[in-house]
Order: sequence, then C-alpha cells, then structure tokens
Amino acid sequence: MTEVADRPTGTSSRPAPAGQPVVDVAALGEQLLGKWAHVRRQARELAARPELHKTEGLTHTEHRKRTFGQLRYLVDNDAVHRAFPAALGGSDDHGGNIAGFEELVTADPSLQIKAGVQWGLFGSAVMHLGTEEHHRKWLPGIMNLDIPGCFAMTETGHGSDVASIATTATYDAGTQEFVINTPFRAAWKDYIGNAAIDGLGAVVFAQLVTRGVNHGVHAFYVDLRDPATKEFLPGIGGEDDGVKGGLNGIDNGRLHFSNVRIPRTNLLNRYGDVDADGTYSSPIASPGRRFFTMLGTLVQGRVSLDGAAVAASKLALKTAITYAAERRQFNSSSLTEEEVLLDYQRHQRRLFTRLATTYAAGFAHEQLLQKFDDVFSGAHDSDADRQDLETLAAALKPLSTWHALDTLQECREACGGAGFLIENRFASLRADLDVYVTFEGDNTVLLQLVAKRLLADYAKEFRSVNFGVLARYVVNQAAGNAVHRTGLRGVAQFVADTGLPQKAAIALREEESQRALLTDRVQTMVAEAGSALRGASKLPQREAAAVFNRHQDELIDAAQAHAELLQWEAFTEALARVEDPGTKTVLTWLRDLFGLSLIEKNLSWYLMNGRLSMQRGRTVGEYINRLLTKIRPHALDLVDAFGYGPDHLRAAIATGAEKLRQDEARAFYRTQRASGQAPVDEKVLLARKVQSAAT
Amino acid sequence: MTEVADRPTGTSSRPAPAGQPVVDVAALGEQLLGKWAHVRRQARELAARPELHKTEGLTHTEHRKRTFGQLRYLVDNDAVHRAFPAALGGSDDHGGNIAGFEELVTADPSLQIKAGVQWGLFGSAVMHLGTEEHHRKWLPGIMNLDIPGCFAMTETGHGSDVASIATTATYDAGTQEFVINTPFRAAWKDYIGNAAIDGLGAVVFAQLVTRGVNHGVHAFYVDLRDPATKEFLPGIGGEDDGVKGGLNGIDNGRLHFSNVRIPRTNLLNRYGDVDADGTYSSPIASPGRRFFTMLGTLVQGRVSLDGAAVAASKLALKTAITYAAERRQFNSSSLTEEEVLLDYQRHQRRLFTRLATTYAAGFAHEQLLQKFDDVFSGAHDSDADRQDLETLAAALKPLSTWHALDTLQECREACGGAGFLIENRFASLRADLDVYVTFEGDNTVLLQLVAKRLLADYAKEFRSVNFGVLARYVVNQAAGNAVHRTGLRGVAQFVADTGLPQKAAIALREEESQRALLTDRVQTMVAEAGSALRGASKLPQREAAAVFNRHQDELIDAAQAHAELLQWEAFTEALARVEDPGTKTVLTWLRDLFGLSLIEKNLSWYLMNGRLSMQRGRTVGEYINRLLTKIRPHALDLVDAFGYGPDHLRAAIATGAEKLRQDEARAFYRTQRASGQAPVDEKVLLARKVQSAAT
Repeated sequence: MTEVADRPTGTSSRPAPAGQPVVDVAALGEQLLGKWAHVRRQARELAARPELHKTEGLTHTEHRKRTFGQLRYLVDNDAVHRAFPAALGGSDDHGGNIAGFEELVTADPSLQIKAGVQWGLFGSAVMHLGTEEHHRKWLPGIMNLDIPGCFAMTETGHGSDVASIATTATYDAGTQEFVINTPFRAAWKDYIGNAAIDGLGAVVFAQLVTRGVNHGVHAFYVDLRDPATKEFLPGIGGEDDGVKGGLNGIDNGRLHFSNVRIPRTNLLNRYGDVDADGTYSSPIASPGRRFFTMLGTLVQGRVSLDGAAVAASKLALKTAITYAAERRQFNSSSLTEEEVLLDYQRHQRRLFTRLATTYAAGFAHEQLLQKFDDVFSGAHDSDADRQDLETLAAALKPLSTWHALDTLQECREACGGAGFLIENRFASLRADLDVYVTFEGDNTVLLQLVAKRLLADYAKEFRSVNFGVLARYVVNQAAGNAVHRTGLRGVAQFVADTGLPQKAAIALREEESQRALLTDRVQTMVAEAGSALRGASKLPQREAAAVFNRHQDELIDAAQAHAELLQWEAFTEALARVEDPGTKTVLTWLRDLFGLSLIEKNLSWYLMNGRLSMQRGRTVGEYINRLLTKIRPHALDLVDAFGYGPDHLRAAIATGAEKLRQDEARAFYRTQRASGQAPVDEKVLLARKVQSAAT
Repeated sequence: MTEVADRPTGTSSRPAPAGQPVVDVAALGEQLLGKWAHVRRQARELAARPELHKTEGLTHTEHRKRTFGQLRYLVDNDAVHRAFPAALGGSDDHGGNIAGFEELVTADPSLQIKAGVQWGLFGSAVMHLGTEEHHRKWLPGIMNLDIPGCFAMTETGHGSDVASIATTATYDAGTQEFVINTPFRAAWKDYIGNAAIDGLGAVVFAQLVTRGVNHGVHAFYVDLRDPATKEFLPGIGGEDDGVKGGLNGIDNGRLHFSNVRIPRTNLLNRYGDVDADGTYSSPIASPGRRFFTMLGTLVQGRVSLDGAAVAASKLALKTAITYAAERRQFNSSSLTEEEVLLDYQRHQRRLFTRLATTYAAGFAHEQLLQKFDDVFSGAHDSDADRQDLETLAAALKPLSTWHALDTLQECREACGGAGFLIENRFASLRADLDVYVTFEGDNTVLLQLVAKRLLADYAKEFRSVNFGVLARYVVNQAAGNAVHRTGLRGVAQFVADTGLPQKAAIALREEESQRALLTDRVQTMVAEAGSALRGASKLPQREAAAVFNRHQDELIDAAQAHAELLQWEAFTEALARVEDPGTKTVLTWLRDLFGLSLIEKNLSWYLMNGRLSMQRGRTVGEYINRLLTKIRPHALDLVDAFGYGPDHLRAAIATGAEKLRQDEARAFYRTQRASGQAPVDEKVLLARKVQSAAT
C-alpha cells in the first residue's frame, strides 16, 4: 500500500441536481493536504496500518507496552527523524516533521503523544537547547530509541507557570558538577511522559544557581535509570501517575531528585553556560528574554496539537455525517418512509457549523505550520517572527483543541447510543484528546498571553494618545497596509484594513461585511481593555493585579475573538486560492456559515455596541438556516475531501452498514405491503370506522 | 457507620469578615437533602463503603463482574426494594426509592445504572405493565436477583422512536402462544443492559399482532437463557456491545428472536390483553394514549437520571472549588506570594456560574421527584398529572445531564493536569455520565416533546384568536393565578403571572425583573413558533413536516428556555423557604447569578426584541462580575452544604493535600529568605545595577 486507501480521486461521485454547484473533491482534498501533502500521505499510509492502531479495552499496563512497541515500529519505518540534523540521519525538515506527526493521531493519540514526548520534547530539547557535543552524544540514541527519555519541566506545584518551578541546579565549582535538587513535595516533576516506566534519561528544567545567583530556568541532561536494571539511579525517585482520563498508552509519572550530581557539561548550554569556575554567561543579556527564547524552541508542541486536533475533528465529522446521511428516524413527512437524520434542521446545525469551524481551523493551522517552518528553517527567523509564531500558536491551539472536544462530543451525541460504543471511536478519541486543552500550555493561560500581546501592540500604537484620538487615527489610516503574511495582525492594522464597520446597512453575506464586523469587535475590545488598564502598570503591584483581574474575563474574550478572526481570515485566504467554480461556491457558503456563526455567538456584543440593528440582528439566524439548506447536498463531499479512509475512521457506523440495515428494513416492509399480508394498524382501523360512521 | 462521615453539623467553620453574612451550612444541607433526607442519608452511608466503589483501571470484563457482585450487596443490604409492593417485601415508596437510587452514582455510575436496569426498568416493567399473577411469579426473583434481566425495548434501527420498533409478537390462537420475531437486522434489540452476559429473563417490547391487526407496542416476558448453562434458549441470539465510552460495569448487548414462542399469559397485560381466541381488549381505547400510558410508567428512569446528574455535578464542584481555594499559581499581586486560583475572575466565572446552575437543578429535581411521588403513590394521579410529570421530566433531564457533563469537564480543566488523572475522578465520572444525555430519551428528542406540549397549550389558549389579539389577552389577564405547585406552567400562566415585562428601567437584580424577563422570553418564543406553525397541521403531511423542520431549532430553544425558567422558579421557591438571614442573602446572590447568567446567555434575544436597552444590556456582565466577588467568601460553605464526605469524593486533590504542599513550599522559601542563604535573582541583580548606574 503506497497510497491512502480511498483518497478522493475525482469530483463528487454523487449526482448533483441541475443548476447545483459541484465540489471537485480531489482538488479540494489536495488543497486541504497543504504544503506538506507528500509527508501527510506517507504518514496516513503508516497510520492506516493495524500495527499502529489503538487496541481498545486494554488495561493501562498493556496499552503502555503496546505503545512503546509502536514507537520502535515508527523508528524502523523512518517516520520520526525528519526534524533532526541531516548529519545525524534526519532531514532538517521542521514543517514536514510536524505534518507527519499530526497524522499519527488517527492511529492512536497515545502513540502520537508518546512519540511527541520522545522526539518532539525530549529530543527537541537536546537539539534546540543543547550544542553540538550534546547532539553527538545523545541524539543518535534518542532518535533510535536506545534512550527513551523524559521532558521533565512541569511540577506538581507549577503547571503552566514554568518560570516559578522550584527544582534547583546549583553549581559546585569544587567538583565541576551541578547538584539537582527537589526542595519540597510541590517541586516534584509531575505528569511527565516516560517517567513511570520507560525513561532512561531526562531533560530536567531547574533554576540554575551559581555563585549565589539564580539565573532562572535552564535545561539539564540527567540519567534517570540504569539501562540494565531499569532501576532509578541513586538520589532519584518517583511515582506512577496511574490511570488517566485517556492517553493510557503513555506512562506518565512523577520524579524527584535528592542532590543528584551531574557533570557541568550536562547543562544544555546554547542560551546560557557556566564556566568551570562558576561564571555564568549567556548570549541573551535579559533573563526574561532568555527564558522566553528557551521555551520558544518548544512551540512545536502547540503547533502539532493544533494540527492533531483538526485531524481528530475531521475523523469525527466524516463518521457522523456519513451516518446521518444513512440513518432514518421518525416518519414525520410520510407514514412509511422515515427521515434521514441529516435532513433535520437541528442536526444540520449541530454538524455543519462544526464542519465550517473545522475547515477554518484547518486552514489556519496550515498558516501556522508554514510560519513555524519559516522560523525553524531559518528562512524568517527574526525576534519579531518568533514572537509572532508564539502568539499565533497561543491563539490557535486553544480554539482548535476545545473545538475538537466539542466536535467529538456533538458527533457522539448526534449518533445516539451508537456514538457511545467504542467501536465507533468518538468516546475513545474524546477521552484521549481531553488533556490537549490543558497541556503544552493551559488554554486559558495561553489566551491570556495572546491578550497581553494585543494590549502591548495597542499600547505601542497609542502610547501617547488619549482614547478620544483613537477614532480619528482610525479614520486617517489609509487602507491597504500590507497584511502580515502569517495572518497575524497588529491591532492598528485591523482598523486600517477594514475601515469603519459601523455602516448602517451591512449585508451579512458579503465577505467585507463579515471581516468588518469581526475585526471591529477585536479592535474595540482590545481598545476598551487597554483604556481600562491604562495607568495600572504605575500602580503598586497588588493594586495593578487587582485592576487586571477585574478585566480578566473580557481580556480572554478579546484574545479568543482575535483567534477566531485569524481563523476566518485563513479560511478566506484559502477560498481565494480555489479555482473550481463549484467548489468555490460551496466553500463560500461554508465560510459564510463560519463567519455568521461567530457573529451569532457574539450577537449581543454587536447589538449592545450599535454595530448591528435589532432588525438586522434578527436576520442572522435565518440566514444561517438558509446556508444549512444550501450546504446539505454537499456535506458528504465536504467530508470526503478530508481524505481519510476506512482504516483511519475505523468506525462501525461509517462503513455503510447502517444503509444496508435501513435498506433491508424498507425492503421488508415494501414486500410485506405488496403481499397483502401486512397486519393492519389499529389506528388505521379506527380511522376507517370513524369515517364509515360519518358517511 | 450510621451517619454520613462529614455531614455538615453547624454553621460555617470559616470566620466571616465583619458585616459579612454567614451561611448556616447545616440547615442549608438539610434543605438540599429534601423530603427524602433519611433515605438519602442511608444511601450515602452505603455509597461511602469501599465494597461499592468503582475500581479504576479494570478491563470491562473485570468491571462487569465486580458490578454484578455489588448488585448482590445491594440486595443483602435492603437497598433496592423500596418501590416494590409491601406484600412482596417492598415498601411502596416510589419517591424514596428514586432518592436512594440517585445517590448510588457517587459509588459507581455503573452500579447505579445496572441497578436501574434490574429493578428500575426490568422489575418496574413487570410491576407496572404486568398484573398480579406476573408480580407473584417474577417479582420475587427479580427483587432478590435470582433473575437478572433485561429491558429489551431499544432496537438498532430505532432509538428514541419506540413506536416504530419492528420486533413482532404475533398471536397464535392454535397454541395460545405469542411468537416473538425479529424480522431484520435493524430490529435487533441493542444497547440492552444485562443482555451480553447476565440476563436470564427479559421484558421484550414488540408490536402486538393478533387477528391481522397490529395493536402497537406491548411488553412481553421472555426467558432468555438457561439458568444452569447461561446459554441462550433456542431461537434467541445476541452479541456483546463490547467496550463503551463509560459504564463498563454493565454488560450491554444485542438480542434477536427467531420465532420464539411464549405463553399467551406472558403478555404483561395491564393496559392491553389478548383472549385465548385472539380477541384484543384494552382499558384504553385510543392506541396513541395507550402507548403513552405504557411508556409513561417508565418515566422514573428520566427522573432518576436528573437527580444523579445533579449529584455528580455536586461532587465535581466540591472537589474543584476545594482545590481552587488551596492551589496557588502565578504571582501577579506580589513577588513572593502566588494567587489562590479561586481569586481569579475567570476561575470564579467558570466555577460559580456552574455552582449556581447546580443549585437550581437540584431544587428543580426535588420538585420533579415530589411530582413523581404524587403520581406514583396515587395521591395525584390524574391524566393531567401524568402528562405534567412527563413534560417536567422531559424538560429537566436534558438540562441537568448536559449540565453535569459541562460541569465535570470545566472542573477537570480548572484543575489542569491533575484534573485529567483518574485519581481525581472527573474524567471517570464524565465518561460514565456521557451516555446520560442520550439514553432514557435523547435530550434533543425530549426537548422537542416539551416544545410540542408548549405549542399544544398555546393552541388551546388561543385556538380561535388571531395573533394581534394576543397582546390584549396578555394585558387583560389578571395577575395572581395560582401557580401550579409543581412549577410546571401553561404558557398563558406565564403571561398572567408576570405582566408586561418590557418596562424601560428594569433593575436586573430584582427577583420580579428576572422572572419577567425569563417568562416573557418563553412566552414570546412559543407564541412566535405557534404563529409560524399555525395552519401547518392542515397541510399535506410532507409539507407540514417541512414547515415544522424549518422551525425545529427555535422550538428546541424555546423548550430549553422553558426548562431553564422552571429551574429558576424552583430556586426562587426554595429561597423563599430559607429562614436564616445570612444563608438567604448568599443564596439570593447565587440565584441572581443563575438568573443573570441565563439572561446573559440569551442577551442578544433580549436586545433584538427590545426587552433590554443597549445600555442595560452592557450592565449584565458587570453585575455578574460583582456577584462573583460577593459569592467568593462563601464558595466553600456552598459546596460543603452538599454534604458529601471524603468517601464520596475520593479525589486526591480534595483531601487538603494541595494545601499541605503549598504551605510546605511557602515555609521553605520563608525560611530560606530569613536565613540570608537564598540565591539572589539575576533580575533583581540587574535592576540594582541599573539603579546604581542612575544614581
């Protein structure tokens, strides 16, 4: 098998009614595969193999063993070395590496995340935070899995607040060693993949202390276990995190260190080093910037979760929409034929709005991945590029991971009891993806980072202007500023790009109207928050924090609105590249559905702030309902374009079995009616009696 | 142990700041326990025992065995016979039976639901649909678990549409037998608890056919397996549903029947019988009413899921709020002390809004349970009472079960990585409760039943009035109509109770304002839908269905708004019974938070329809934020009043362990600072340099 089983190979196989647009499924599928289509195809071919599939119903002990074996399978099949240096057998391909990695989620999310721990976190930390000697010494063993390892950053007492971790690495000039120590229980490393069983080595994050000065969080390579006995080395201890809500193929655990001594050269010293005599040096003078630079090398975790979440959403929608197009329930429109679920308005609303969001999130992810590749390949690697990448990842990962959980759940419910059976996979995927919303940066924390960036941009533009001046500034800005190619925009640009949105009669279906409404909301929310927080930085810290806290909720909302706008822009840019007119028409409906769903969700804001009239507000819901009807005939094409075959879906209700059952049932009743042997319904009998009594 | 471990025994143990109200936790706890407090206490004492607790990490095979054993334990401890006839060792206590049953969810939802299958569905069907001979013959064995059995209603091809099931029971007068038959694959019974392994008997629902007439769905007692060999009897076959998203202690499976013959007297004949010669008779002439009467006896499933969902929400909030009051993260307000999570505005919003909804859902459930007991005890057992009960259950069960999933998930996320560990139970409970939203009536289908009832009530009131007359009718209605004691109201009553809500200046914190806004919305939505659908019933069926479908989404929204109003009314009525002034003040804030959260959620509707001005709309969010701050000091009291102890919570992070860790960490740093041995932070060093350079 060198091709994915049922990759779309032509236009829709479903006949379109006259005058209806037709989706070119193959071309759309190609566009969705994006820049790294070839890598995705390879990875999907791999993910389709039974060896890599999740076996349901295993104990967590059995599942862990299976997943570890699958990691070896990935090594044997050259699937996981793309990002590593060519000199060591990799191919220095950062974007392609993530693209391939994301697709593994379709085989088993545990496999994806365990691979992510080994190569994306542990290996990446050695690669990006270490220097050449470290690469030569450890990367080969990491790459070929001789050294399964941990990324020991998070502590029980500190999740997303990495700067506050309490593990220390104190330099001892006498022996030229660092002493790694866990001062108290809250400083145990926790939730660490590979820590409970498999990890032989670890990159441990700790506060680097030398000559009485704490230089902040640095990464240290530490041997954890004796490779022969698999026992912890002296001074190291730990605990198993046990069963989790999902991802039970990974042996998460806790680690603690009691004055464990490691050579000075085990400091991964790319961004900070300690001389033999204990002198600290760093190419980055500011401790704050140094910290963010080091952590910034780890952004790929967020990027890949964003992509994996989109992939899982696609699987769920493909299954649920396939089933809904076959399943019949309730005979509302005739006495003998029941309705197909997908013809019910509520069912369309439940599934198509999420389909639209999935397309938007997918297109946004492709932009994020390209930005990531630009930075990590060195093509566009300025400080500003790195900051943009961080912000973009922090904005998109929360939305796509929450969306995946929401979509998996809605699809599971839309399939009723069948959706709850593991054979249909929704519940399994949902359980595994649950933690995506809080790991690699808690979603709520990430959105606050985005909000801070938006505020900073706002402050930069309007540092010395009072709020009243803002309106004039907006008007005076000429449109046509180059839009940043990543889709990340400064606040000022939103305004410049879109002009004044408060026009009386906005036709909601026009692209420019949607853009104006969405951008205006972000801009206004940021400006309002910025205005409310102005001067807070001059207050004593406690009062400043209180002011900030009183606006925390709206700041997070503003960040989310910003991220949604980025998704909408990405969808719109992708739409501009569609050439086939039928596809373009249908995708435009889908983009409009996405845009209008966002506007509907925040309709109260638009009304309260005078952006939409009461009358126009009332048309939003109606227009969405009309779009649902238009999209209905193309729903199967739109999920076919995802390109996932039966070996990726592996859902009993996505196999056509339901259609066979429905057809068999209808044929039975047809035959029975034709035979004259069908029992008469008591209700019909009663109706006849009533009729004959009346005549 | 005869009392629940840590049942609140006094007023809040936390000192209140001067001038702050104090919650009487014990009295509030007593009120929350409701009418069947004694039963709940007994059931909680039982649920606290380790023998009944879910063991995490079992395979589904092991879990099934454990759960079956626990059912015997319930029998041995007299925990499950309350609803059965006194003559057979029960106590004819319907309300108490449900109250006790609900509390089992805290031990293991699989135990709850497996007990529900055996006694609440299988046993109940024999009791309510059968007659005395059936009771004597089967109830003793069902009660003592000699006959584990199935409630075989749902089919693969028909979930919530029971009227359309395809299994037939055709009477053969020659042998005086019914022939049970499964005509095609879609007619297999599916998702049936006890079907895969344990079930020896079953109540099978099938279309009763005699003398060529189909009299609709009836229930038949069928022996499934040989008690000695546990093998299926001839003509019966099945399949295991396998692993599910949760509830894996229950052996759900599929069943099919190939012309299986059972005695005529195995028809559970309370509502329909067949003579030896094949003549059908029923005390209920209308086939439609007969069907709903038979199914109506099964409403207790919905009632008990409503209560169990509230209980699970309480467990989650008690754990998450306890943890959030101890856990510190990010030092935003000082350099040395980190913030307690519960002081963050977003965290309060995430948890307190759900706390308010949980109180509302709990009070509404108590009303539902009393209504249920009124009907089933025969105290108030008219057709109208039964219909009200059905509608009330159909309205409340969707909201509380969705709320439980939402709350479990939000609490899990609010506890970060710790929330994902099974040792903290959120993920386990969430997985088990997932199916509550689609079984015993799919939530979306149930809300449509409610909508139909609302439309019918509307049509009854305004049958001959055109829409313009409605406004006058509203104005002319005098206020003060007796509110139906169950909280279920006809549409006309809403209007009469509340008068005209569109007043210019509504103070949102006033009870009457909230009521007016909430009732007006329901009334208007139903009236609008009713108006849009008027005349549809006269159209040909296909067109009528299309018109209905175009309004499906708004009808479901209207039903939900109605159910939310019922919750708000229940909360408000409960509030009126609170005597302690401190408790009353705090609970009023919580009720206001619930009411305003509903208004905020639907704010666009209030704005679009001129019920709130733009200006007042903008105050809703601010007022909610102020309520959060007011509730903050009482949050722990409010979850303590739920009365669940450590043996119910069984969450590592609800034990105070986090506080110990935090205290230990802070003590460490304090000691270090005091010793003068603390390393100097590089940032502080740099700041000093800058300062000394400047002076």
